[in-house]
Amino acid sequence: MQTQSDAQAEKETGRLEAFSDGVFAIAITLLVLELKVPSIPPAGATSAALGEALLGLWPSYFALVTSFFTILIMWMHHHAILRNVHRTDSRLHFCNGCLLLLITFVPYPTSVLAAYLHTPAAKMAAAFYAGTFVLVAMCFSLFIYGAFRPHLLSRNASARFIETTHRNYRLGPPLYLLAMLAAFIDARLCLGICTALWIYWAAVIRS
Amino acid sequence: MQTQSDAQAEKETGRLEAFSDGVFAIAITLLVLELKVPSIPPAGATSAALGEALLGLWPSYFALVTSFFTILIMWMHHHAILRNVHRTDSRLHFCNGCLLLLITFVPYPTSVLAAYLHTPAAKMAAAFYAGTFVLVAMCFSLFIYGAFRPHLLSRNASARFIETTHRNYRLGPPLYLLAMLAAFIDARLCLGICTALWIYWAAVIRS
Amino acid sequence: MQTQSDAQAEKETGRLEAFSDGVFAIAITLLVLELKVPSIPPAGATSAALGEALLGLWPSYFALVTSFFTILIMWMHHHAILRNVHRTDSRLHFCNGCLLLLITFVPYPTSVLAAYLHTPAAKMAAAFYAGTFVLVAMCFSLFIYGAFRPHLLSRNASARFIETTHRNYRLGPPLYLLAMLAAFIDARLCLGICTALWIYWAAVIRS
Amino acid sequence: MQTQSDAQAEKETGRLEAFSDGVFAIAITLLVLELKVPSIPPAGATSAALGEALLGLWPSYFALVTSFFTILIMWMHHHAILRNVHRTDSRLHFCNGCLLLLITFVPYPTSVLAAYLHTPAAKMAAAFYAGTFVLVAMCFSLFIYGAFRPHLLSRNASARFIETTHRNYRLGPPLYLLAMLAAFIDARLCLGICTALWIYWAAVIRS
Repeated sequence: MQTQSDAQAEKETGRLEAFSDGVFAIAITLLVLELKVPSIPPAGATSAALGEALLGLWPSYFALVTSFFTILIMWMHHHAILRNVHRTDSRLHFCNGCLLLLITFVPYPTSVLAAYLHTPAAKMAAAFYAGTFVLVAMCFSLFIYGAFRPHLLSRNASARFIETTHRNYRLGPPLYLLAMLAAFIDARLCLGICTALWIYWAAVIRS
Repeated sequence: MQTQSDAQAEKETGRLEAFSDGVFAIAITLLVLELKVPSIPPAGATSAALGEALLGLWPSYFALVTSFFTILIMWMHHHAILRNVHRTDSRLHFCNGCLLLLITFVPYPTSVLAAYLHTPAAKMAAAFYAGTFVLVAMCFSLFIYGAFRPHLLSRNASARFIETTHRNYRLGPPLYLLAMLAAFIDARLCLGICTALWIYWAAVIRS
Repeated sequence: MQTQSDAQAEKETGRLEAFSDGVFAIAITLLVLELKVPSIPPAGATSAALGEALLGLWPSYFALVTSFFTILIMWMHHHAILRNVHRTDSRLHFCNGCLLLLITFVPYPTSVLAAYLHTPAAKMAAAFYAGTFVLVAMCFSLFIYGAFRPHLLSRNASARFIETTHRNYRLGPPLYLLAMLAAFIDARLCLGICTALWIYWAAVIRS
Repeated sequence: MQTQSDAQAEKETGRLEAFSDGVFAIAITLLVLELKVPSIPPAGATSAALGEALLGLWPSYFALVTSFFTILIMWMHHHAILRNVHRTDSRLHFCNGCLLLLITFVPYPTSVLAAYLHTPAAKMAAAFYAGTFVLVAMCFSLFIYGAFRPHLLSRNASARFIETTHRNYRLGPPLYLLAMLAAFIDARLCLGICTALWIYWAAVIRS
């Protein structure tokens, strides 16, 4: 049986989780606002023209899907990590807050990418996109560090899980940095790496 | 009495539900952003002109109501399905993630439909709208498949409910495909089928 | 002690509440998107000009505050009503869904009101605003009817509360209709009535 | 053991918390909508031009970060305060409602600040920003007053926490007023004070 104080600590963790879930859910849903209705002059608004315009938005769809799954996978890991945490303190709240700041920011580079992927500025747009994820990955590492301190861990926290998580995420910042640098060679190469990364992290989830 | 591990598994399912609920609730509320305030030049901004402009937005209201109820009904079914599930795994998370991606996307074809229903591009706008729901329905089937695997079902899952759900939803993708094809005959026919479909699924709910 | 089935029924009600809370919270927060940053040509962008522009937005602030408190008060009543409900069924879900549709719609007439309160179209804008609340109030009555059916009530539901609620809300639709008609005399009269109404309903809350 | 009525009262408090959390989470996430994709004429859309445009948006990033942490810290205090509260009444709901109104408003002065920090109207934009937080801080004091009434406090409420909270927050309104007045000397001075304030409140959290 738990003591009253354990129950209280767990309720705290629950509220941190619920707030974070809310921010993840809203950020993931706001991504759609990036998509703009094509504006075709009334004279030329035929079905063919609209179909072509909607197809021409493929960079927007691609950016939306990439950002969506990157955030979703991060939410799943966030969730798996907090399952091992029994107690919060102000440092964990602060680390988590930095992560949430970056998560709420993601729809912006997604919009920039979608707007400029067709233009000669594609390289900078892709670098800005990957650069945001460098910061996101750094904040995620900060969050892992904040969560996995001994006095916060729950009794049934798995040492193996903690070790695996540290190992999997250590690679986040350098790999996104690589993607960012790759953008200056070719924007598509950068986005290919970003896509490969969320697929990789999706694959390592064992929930 | 439940074992500790059952309680943990159920908490997991609860968090998946809560996150999904958040995404459904946000997507359903973002639909209103599709509605644009009519811009009447100051010289002509009389009550009569504003009233006419607000009435002229009926395709927007229609699209809003159709999308709202389609998402709401889907949330109710999502909810009824998860009531039979006791445990989650990464495959269910992934199937659910695909469904959520499509749900967050719905406000976009809704805006496109509202913007072009008055124009000669109405057929393409309606086809794009119904085409989105072909994908939504396919993801919903994927979600049902992900949820109704034996080791995830709760002890009091109803075999009859599972069978009925499979039967009811098997029809989703082909019927929305029919609506999509109907759009190329007449946009209104397409929207009529979409409306009939959410009313049909509303009717089959037994919660 | 509750039976298993009671616990399950209560969990259902909890999920309906949580989803509705989400929609109320999002709709109330989206109201701010109605406020547009004043666009002053760079040449004239002095502090005095910006101050004047921000003051000139008072109809927007007024509309925001009115809509905010109207939705907030309605959420509080929604909440007080569901406290007496132990069980949900598909009819209650449907009644609640209609209410949520109207709640998500509120930011739109709020924007229209803010945009046209300074113009000769103010009467129509105010009538559209109050007219939306006629529908909201009708859906709220529908929701009350859906919630207060004997087999859904919890054992400790208060007969006096039910009666008072019915009496207080019966007045909603005709009073908002009055506000709507008053708009055609003077937009300010209409808004005065809308303001008086949320203050009245705030006063009758005994939570 | 709790009595049934205590459990009910606590559930009420839980729902107030959950609703408030929702509003905080949404307001904090909507801040990103303030950031506009730079519009560079297609002819000049090079990577260098886009990079320069994205760097030129630093006032927007600064405003975003300041508002984000101010709201986040306030959420953490809101949370710490409600932990000491066992019961809600309509006065607490009303005080909390006023606070939420101001929280949902924050994205607007943030946008105004970002849009005008580069212009001669910077002083007014900063004063409007700090002025909003004068009102936020006043509502926060109102919320503290509403929450810390003896009959609402839980049995294990800490007298020391209550006293410290009162002392820490009493300073909010005058300090933001000072920031607002400082804006008329220099916009940067005003923003420096606002930044110092959220760092100060972050430091006093002992959760």
